[in-house]
Amino acid sequence: MAAPTSLAGYDSYTYFLITSPAPYVAHVEINRPAKLNAFLRAMWLELRVIFDKLSHDPNVRAVVLTGAGDRAFTAGLDVQAAAASEPTLAGSSIKMDVARAATVRRRDLVEFQECIQAVEKCEKPVICVLHGISIGLAIDLSTCADVRICAANARFAVKEVDIGLAADIGTLSRLPKCVGSFSWVKDVCLSARMFDAREALTVGFVSQVHEDKSKAVEAGLKMAELLATKSPVAVQGTKELLNHARDHSVDESLRYTAIWNQGMLQSDDVSAALLSGLQKRKPTFEKL
Amino acid sequence: MAAPTSLAGYDSYTYFLITSPAPYVAHVEINRPAKLNAFLRAMWLELRVIFDKLSHDPNVRAVVLTGAGDRAFTAGLDVQAAAASEPTLAGSSIKMDVARAATVRRRDLVEFQECIQAVEKCEKPVICVLHGISIGLAIDLSTCADVRICAANARFAVKEVDIGLAADIGTLSRLPKCVGSFSWVKDVCLSARMFDAREALTVGFVSQVHEDKSKAVEAGLKMAELLATKSPVAVQGTKELLNHARDHSVDESLRYTAIWNQGMLQSDDVSAALLSGLQKRKPTFEKL
Amino acid sequence: MAAPTSLAGYDSYTYFLITSPAPYVAHVEINRPAKLNAFLRAMWLELRVIFDKLSHDPNVRAVVLTGAGDRAFTAGLDVQAAAASEPTLAGSSIKMDVARAATVRRRDLVEFQECIQAVEKCEKPVICVLHGISIGLAIDLSTCADVRICAANARFAVKEVDIGLAADIGTLSRLPKCVGSFSWVKDVCLSARMFDAREALTVGFVSQVHEDKSKAVEAGLKMAELLATKSPVAVQGTKELLNHARDHSVDESLRYTAIWNQGMLQSDDVSAALLSGLQKRKPTFEKL
Amino acid sequence: MAAPTSLAGYDSYTYFLITSPAPYVAHVEINRPAKLNAFLRAMWLELRVIFDKLSHDPNVRAVVLTGAGDRAFTAGLDVQAAAASEPTLAGSSIKMDVARAATVRRRDLVEFQECIQAVEKCEKPVICVLHGISIGLAIDLSTCADVRICAANARFAVKEVDIGLAADIGTLSRLPKCVGSFSWVKDVCLSARMFDAREALTVGFVSQVHEDKSKAVEAGLKMAELLATKSPVAVQGTKELLNHARDHSVDESLRYTAIWNQGMLQSDDVSAALLSGLQKRKPTFEKL
Amino acid sequence: MAAPTSLAGYDSYTYFLITSPAPYVAHVEINRPAKLNAFLRAMWLELRVIFDKLSHDPNVRAVVLTGAGDRAFTAGLDVQAAAASEPTLAGSSIKMDVARAATVRRRDLVEFQECIQAVEKCEKPVICVLHGISIGLAIDLSTCADVRICAANARFAVKEVDIGLAADIGTLSRLPKCVGSFSWVKDVCLSARMFDAREALTVGFVSQVHEDKSKAVEAGLKMAELLATKSPVAVQGTKELLNHARDHSVDESLRYTAIWNQGMLQSDDVSAALLSGLQKRKPTFEKL
Amino acid sequence: MAAPTSLAGYDSYTYFLITSPAPYVAHVEINRPAKLNAFLRAMWLELRVIFDKLSHDPNVRAVVLTGAGDRAFTAGLDVQAAAASEPTLAGSSIKMDVARAATVRRRDLVEFQECIQAVEKCEKPVICVLHGISIGLAIDLSTCADVRICAANARFAVKEVDIGLAADIGTLSRLPKCVGSFSWVKDVCLSARMFDAREALTVGFVSQVHEDKSKAVEAGLKMAELLATKSPVAVQGTKELLNHARDHSVDESLRYTAIWNQGMLQSDDVSAALLSGLQKRKPTFEKL
Repeated sequence: MAAPTSLAGYDSYTYFLITSPAPYVAHVEINRPAKLNAFLRAMWLELRVIFDKLSHDPNVRAVVLTGAGDRAFTAGLDVQAAAASEPTLAGSSIKMDVARAATVRRRDLVEFQECIQAVEKCEKPVICVLHGISIGLAIDLSTCADVRICAANARFAVKEVDIGLAADIGTLSRLPKCVGSFSWVKDVCLSARMFDAREALTVGFVSQVHEDKSKAVEAGLKMAELLATKSPVAVQGTKELLNHARDHSVDESLRYTAIWNQGMLQSDDVSAALLSGLQKRKPTFEKL
Repeated sequence: MAAPTSLAGYDSYTYFLITSPAPYVAHVEINRPAKLNAFLRAMWLELRVIFDKLSHDPNVRAVVLTGAGDRAFTAGLDVQAAAASEPTLAGSSIKMDVARAATVRRRDLVEFQECIQAVEKCEKPVICVLHGISIGLAIDLSTCADVRICAANARFAVKEVDIGLAADIGTLSRLPKCVGSFSWVKDVCLSARMFDAREALTVGFVSQVHEDKSKAVEAGLKMAELLATKSPVAVQGTKELLNHARDHSVDESLRYTAIWNQGMLQSDDVSAALLSGLQKRKPTFEKL
Repeated sequence: MAAPTSLAGYDSYTYFLITSPAPYVAHVEINRPAKLNAFLRAMWLELRVIFDKLSHDPNVRAVVLTGAGDRAFTAGLDVQAAAASEPTLAGSSIKMDVARAATVRRRDLVEFQECIQAVEKCEKPVICVLHGISIGLAIDLSTCADVRICAANARFAVKEVDIGLAADIGTLSRLPKCVGSFSWVKDVCLSARMFDAREALTVGFVSQVHEDKSKAVEAGLKMAELLATKSPVAVQGTKELLNHARDHSVDESLRYTAIWNQGMLQSDDVSAALLSGLQKRKPTFEKL
Repeated sequence: MAAPTSLAGYDSYTYFLITSPAPYVAHVEINRPAKLNAFLRAMWLELRVIFDKLSHDPNVRAVVLTGAGDRAFTAGLDVQAAAASEPTLAGSSIKMDVARAATVRRRDLVEFQECIQAVEKCEKPVICVLHGISIGLAIDLSTCADVRICAANARFAVKEVDIGLAADIGTLSRLPKCVGSFSWVKDVCLSARMFDAREALTVGFVSQVHEDKSKAVEAGLKMAELLATKSPVAVQGTKELLNHARDHSVDESLRYTAIWNQGMLQSDDVSAALLSGLQKRKPTFEKL
Repeated sequence: MAAPTSLAGYDSYTYFLITSPAPYVAHVEINRPAKLNAFLRAMWLELRVIFDKLSHDPNVRAVVLTGAGDRAFTAGLDVQAAAASEPTLAGSSIKMDVARAATVRRRDLVEFQECIQAVEKCEKPVICVLHGISIGLAIDLSTCADVRICAANARFAVKEVDIGLAADIGTLSRLPKCVGSFSWVKDVCLSARMFDAREALTVGFVSQVHEDKSKAVEAGLKMAELLATKSPVAVQGTKELLNHARDHSVDESLRYTAIWNQGMLQSDDVSAALLSGLQKRKPTFEKL
Repeated sequence: MAAPTSLAGYDSYTYFLITSPAPYVAHVEINRPAKLNAFLRAMWLELRVIFDKLSHDPNVRAVVLTGAGDRAFTAGLDVQAAAASEPTLAGSSIKMDVARAATVRRRDLVEFQECIQAVEKCEKPVICVLHGISIGLAIDLSTCADVRICAANARFAVKEVDIGLAADIGTLSRLPKCVGSFSWVKDVCLSARMFDAREALTVGFVSQVHEDKSKAVEAGLKMAELLATKSPVAVQGTKELLNHARDHSVDESLRYTAIWNQGMLQSDDVSAALLSGLQKRKPTFEKL
């Protein structure tokens, strides 16, 4: 794999490093290693801007999401920073009316949820590669990705119960649909206990474990490179339809699928793929 | 672990023994070992009373459900008793009008479903520890619990097909959402075959297997003890939101979660947990 | 197991061979081995006719679906035949209006989906035994079956992305509900990569792997034979209620189950099964 | 219509008077006229007991719900009593933790909702006759009834906004499904303004307006008497299926309906009704 | 309006007369006036064949459904014929097992529902013109149509309760979504009482009332003629999206609408309609 | 009513004029009267910015939306401008691949839908006052508002079919839930015919008709002024819960309502409203 070049138009971000290690592949790195890639509000706002842009960028067909540094994918919310900006935690003596405080919190929560959800809403497939400390927001974020891969040293936890709250940025909403064992989901979410790469693989939370971070990232980039050679119409349609299927009955999903493909099957990609398949050569596809 | 003391206010039940092996932990034992803990109607009515009470009891933060005796968690419905009270089975020659018989059966079924569902509706997390014979109602009951643990000698079966009916107290409704392999679910539900602890672990029906009953119960109590040290606001919210997520789309779940937490995040537990986390000491939380 | 006899009334099909290897068991074989059992439109239309008939046939209580020949369960859509009948692929220069072309495609897709769905809608349980090449439509078809078993040589792929489209006959709608790991589902659906029997078992896509095709088919027939000895009221109700549960919340499922059983529990099968259970003899059940 | 006799087994209630003005008809009167039939907690608990009992009582086939006295169906919640029992309103200086206060309120709300919902869950049709002041809880209660009739002097309001809260006992959940104009629903719910009988009829909130209370009650009783002469299997099934239809898609409703009637159509009531129809005589039906 | 000519390809039906009174308009007449157009099973099977064909027929853009003769749109199910073919009604002494009888009835019901639903599933808009006796199945049938018009002499009833059953062919599923007043729906469905054209208009069940049958049919044909001049892509999309919206949340509907139109907006009809609009001339549209 | 003053912070918009005619009331005027207030893309983007801001603005408690000029609320999409910017309409000979064109259109549609939906998502109630020409987008826009009022001269049409497409910005999704008669909805949506103020009132599309535009606007402002005097916690909660109820079953809505109010009932507004009610004086409420 060639050395990554920077991805045109993505060089102005503070907390994320974005490169293009292969044609049509974007590599997004959470880049605050000194703080274990812990998240500030400015970071999730930036994350949304980036993934919204990747979603519509015709030069991108697959995305790999990783964390900078050796120690952590991300240690989650930067709790100290959050506490500092939170009057009640900082010991403010002024009590807001409960309904008004609720309104402020709801607006903040919805904004936060939407920022993280930008990863799921991104039309291109996102492969998340986790390593080291991967707790709290790491779980929210990675359950928004399509494929989860990890290094053997990854240490996971749904940590929120230990800071006195029920996880609300997506983990509780998505985890029951990412793995099969509801007993296991309840166990890790209620207890906030750590689990390792092997356990994550056994329950199906990740679908590959690699020796170390660099091997895991390499595997993630390789998968992205492969996806980027395929019809973007087919790949992006597959992502859309699988996410829809997760949340709907089979009948609803079949109906939606037929409506989706009544248009998409008219794409030139179908004949391009078919012909190159019959002729045993590599197809090329128009930008999308 | 200290010797269990009886839990105040729970000493008047006929079929269940309720103790408190640790602070804020309730241990509910199905107590009809001579009959393999098989269930009579009086038992599920009592079960509902107990779990409705535990649900709102501020002295309880986690519940462990086990079966008394060495041989069985429960052998399910006490079929002989049921047959005796069922006129058509007992050979009564009077045929009721089908619609009227249907109405009687529906009311009975709904009552039965609601009694067992009391375990799921209990606001506190419930850890179910299964051992020995664990068939029929054992599956209905345990799928209502949050976490399932078993002893190596546990023998499970979705037995209903063998008594001529489709399981209707919850197994068919919940099992597809408790484990990942739908092929396996269909296999065990259609064939009524036995499966053992190892198989239950592989498919994710249970999340731990222990050497024998006493080890399994100990593990269950330990987990309960751990959960009971955590913020009850966080733990109970997590249970509520995970059960909601199981039954709703991700978008619905996110919305519900934000509404839930707009109030719950105002709890003092958040600052208590945060501060004790920063100060590396054990937090205490108000009753709930 | 006795030599299979032909099943009365099912001898007129072109692409499927239907026999009765045991009482109340139908064995449906996809029978176009020279073309790796690849599907033409005439085949899925025939498939629907067959499964609609099996669904209501009182002489059938369980169905086994296999592919003829050593090499493939099915290689999926017969792409060359499909291309020949598809004007745009065949290089026709006449461009249809997009909306009108969409309408034609939607009608075709819905017909195709409904034909394959006949396997799921069949009131009797269907055990699908896969071997060798099992790609594309093989996945759509087998996810409609209740139980999936395979031979060790089975090679699977959700192949559609490689022909430029998102799978639309049911794989994307059902696979997320057949296995637990959503990361794995995304991986195989986005990449169109092959996976083998062992991987299929690990993720729960199949629930048994056997040494070779004949062993796998034997196991499938044995399971069907077992199901066929049980109450058809109980077995068919269990299939109906599990499929309903997959697509509904637990509350919806419980309500539907109670309504279903308010009638079905009045069946004589309940007392027949109960009595024979108490008397340790094999019950017989009326046709359904 | 004969003078109402008391209904056997319903004479022990404090806040409701229950009579039987015609065979199989129960007349439930809210009986706290001195306080404009305003509701205390004890009243809604009693209401639930009564309607749960009516629901299964074979001697009841239709229910009429009215308010005692000339002035009001009900003035809603007894706000003064509620305020007295509510520490924060009563000026208590102790502030509960927000999450714990939320939990208490949620439990109270759910109990309150369930008590009022007993009217909707009652298997027998309920005709609500409103007159005079009919505000707040009057709307919650009447939207749980099947048919709404009123006297010309009825004065309605969704009053909750004026006591600083969004109506939470059912009005906001049901009113959009009781009348067609969503603009009108928003208008009356947001503004808390009064509307009269004529307006209620125009928008379809009530389906009949009568000159005065006695005429309206007479009409309600007459309708109940008519319903009570019909097959209870047909009438109760119709109520169940219409309430299900309100909350489900047409496809879901059709499926549920078929399952319901697969049993219910086997009732002797069908032949009894058909034959008496052909023979132009009044059928009689077994109790249900 | 020109004299109706027969519609090519639709002249072989026994119970329906199909003509083409205007370009792209099909007029389907229920044609069993001697029996008040009462329905036999053969009729609903034929109805399905006809509407399935109209649905895909490029020569049809709008359908009008009426009943032959002066006296009735339809008197519903031909009860005498139904009773004759129904063993239990005909006094057969053999009692089938309840579960097996339920299965037979469910299959019949689902077939019957699907036949009537063919009117709703027809891709072309259907205008139903009712007159005279319009009871029972008349309501099921007309609620599947898009627009309901009636003659002043129309007499409606949801008659099923009077034959001992809850309406199961679609009335209970669709009526709550066809009119706004749920109180009125409950009133007419529970009581089986007659209601006239004026009442039907007031509650919104029909949207036009005309002096007599011929005026009403003329109005229906005129509306169909108008719809047939418009873009069939636009008209058929509108029908599809409105039926989808009825059964889904606004968010689901918006998403489905966008997917539908991502293809359909590429139609040449859009520019054809726009240009002819700007040029004040009548557009013509390709067949669909 | 005092002369409107400009609303601080809302003076920089190109296409909308925003004033504050009363405390806590915002009046948003579509301000492109020379073009009959027809919409350009820049306008709906601006509309979203405005309503997103109003939604969280503590100085606003109710919003009135009107159109400038005598002739039109809005004539809908500025078709000429849209045609000019649309290559296929402008006669461009380059044909884009169908799937890629579909993707572009879907993104545009979703953006457009979201901009208009900002009116519905605005946390404050929105009263829409329509007059004169009110077609196409006028319907989409007004169905997002909470209350619809019109002048006697208002002329409405769901115009989209006449430009060759199915309405996709919200009319088809919301209209079936705004009025009761589905027959009427189908009629106006399929035919694109005009309907007037009287008809709009009869079917419940608007809830008030006033003599002329100025009277209608006055009435809208008066209603807004009234709403602005009430508890914003109660008013905004009512909007949220009614919109939720429209899209969910009664059971879902009750559950959501209880969760919402477990926090909101702790507001000081409840005691403020209750006390001022008991003391017959006007309450004041904190900003929200």
